[in-house]
Amino acid sequence: MSKTVVYEVNVMFGDCDPAGIVFFPNFAKWMDASSLNFFIQSGVPPWRELVKTTGIIGTPLLEINTKFLRPATYGETLQIHTSIEEWRDKVFVHRHLIKRGDELLCEGTEVRAFCMRLPDSDRIKAIPVPADIKALCC
Amino acid sequence: MSKTVVYEVNVMFGDCDPAGIVFFPNFAKWMDASSLNFFIQSGVPPWRELVKTTGIIGTPLLEINTKFLRPATYGETLQIHTSIEEWRDKVFVHRHLIKRGDELLCEGTEVRAFCMRLPDSDRIKAIPVPADIKALCC
Amino acid sequence: MSKTVVYEVNVMFGDCDPAGIVFFPNFAKWMDASSLNFFIQSGVPPWRELVKTTGIIGTPLLEINTKFLRPATYGETLQIHTSIEEWRDKVFVHRHLIKRGDELLCEGTEVRAFCMRLPDSDRIKAIPVPADIKALCC
Amino acid sequence: MSKTVVYEVNVMFGDCDPAGIVFFPNFAKWMDASSLNFFIQSGVPPWRELVKTTGIIGTPLLEINTKFLRPATYGETLQIHTSIEEWRDKVFVHRHLIKRGDELLCEGTEVRAFCMRLPDSDRIKAIPVPADIKALCC
Repeated sequence: MSKTVVYEVNVMFGDCDPAGIVFFPNFAKWMDASSLNFFIQSGVPPWRELVKTTGIIGTPLLEINTKFLRPATYGETLQIHTSIEEWRDKVFVHRHLIKRGDELLCEGTEVRAFCMRLPDSDRIKAIPVPADIKALCC
Repeated sequence: MSKTVVYEVNVMFGDCDPAGIVFFPNFAKWMDASSLNFFIQSGVPPWRELVKTTGIIGTPLLEINTKFLRPATYGETLQIHTSIEEWRDKVFVHRHLIKRGDELLCEGTEVRAFCMRLPDSDRIKAIPVPADIKALCC
Repeated sequence: MSKTVVYEVNVMFGDCDPAGIVFFPNFAKWMDASSLNFFIQSGVPPWRELVKTTGIIGTPLLEINTKFLRPATYGETLQIHTSIEEWRDKVFVHRHLIKRGDELLCEGTEVRAFCMRLPDSDRIKAIPVPADIKALCC
Repeated sequence: MSKTVVYEVNVMFGDCDPAGIVFFPNFAKWMDASSLNFFIQSGVPPWRELVKTTGIIGTPLLEINTKFLRPATYGETLQIHTSIEEWRDKVFVHRHLIKRGDELLCEGTEVRAFCMRLPDSDRIKAIPVPADIKALCC
């Protein structure tokens, strides 16, 4: 069984749309925050520190698949249950379950890669999953 | 061949993250805007008008799958090419290609349903795709 | 001394801009959330409930003045200290201090009015501050 | 008379809140985008270029004062009319008028400073307004 880290979010009025429910891209924002929190809680430094020692700028997203089961609204507290479903050579697969207590609202699967900035360039490239980071997360 | 409607977006500084590139949930926000624009350009009234005559509040998202191929940054102009890939009885499938001129940056597939608010309730329910709206969009 | 209610926010990666610091409109979003939280904690129902019994849709903003003293970044926890500085006949003045522990990052003053939707219209109008709501907040 | 540069924005569904109107922090986001556009249109390179040659990371905000006169909603096109009201030694004052055609919706005044990153540090400091940038903007 893989480790699961839970990140809590309070839904704000400004997260909701004219239908009165969470505007769906905010679920993606919260999965992103929960992904970063997963690494921080596992002992990985924040990206702004890690880039100085390793050149790694973070884990840009390659793909995200999301299903929406129930809406949420402002004033509610949600929990994002985040784990790593699979480690491949160059990418890893995140699994996020967004819940309101026992109710499942949204489930998402992200494919991400660790990336570095190319020297003297604005471009970034994917690198193999660093073994030390992987070890921290298992 | 299905109709394609193009929606243009100017990327703002505030759309970008500490890595200097578009924060990915904004691509979802822009697909949502392009979906609405698709209906408006096809002759469907905005949701705030439609709800008064039909009770339809819009087309909430059931599922979205997105692939990210290249990043974008502020100051760039992007085009979202939006079409309807498939009409089913109760849902339809949107296809969005986000391009910067000829370059494909991101592709997304959305499953959406037309929804109404239940009488005397905050709850909403999916309804069969309205034939008149479908006719406008083909 | 007026009542102060504290609302806590965890700064997310997606709240930050290419300079690596909180994109300033997010401070306004958090002040708005803290304003709503102030009323909820004082016993006022959420706007979506209040509108059904009173027609009041919330407290739209008339004016906001904000000073930025220090930046914040993702991974940090901030506290928004919110009070009501002044009640006038038709408006009230909110005071928000955004802190990171003892450090003051940002201070904001908002002028807001309670508003109702005009019957059979999309337009809204300001109403005198409701005495029962004011009583709850003091 | 100072130069005025106009930046156009299409209001998206996701820019609006449960009251069906633009969530006010988005006006601040658009003023920020219009400020950057003002400099770009005046011939100043984007911040990500300027930082490489001069160390200047942009023009962080020190203060913003905003008045809201009329709401806006999705599907509308707004114009942000941006000028520089005053140049002081270390700061400058931006003036933004957000209009929908002839109607004034929102007016904002920003105090900003050009800033550099301190060597070997995450901290930034304000610098005197660069004479060459000022010359481009008049």
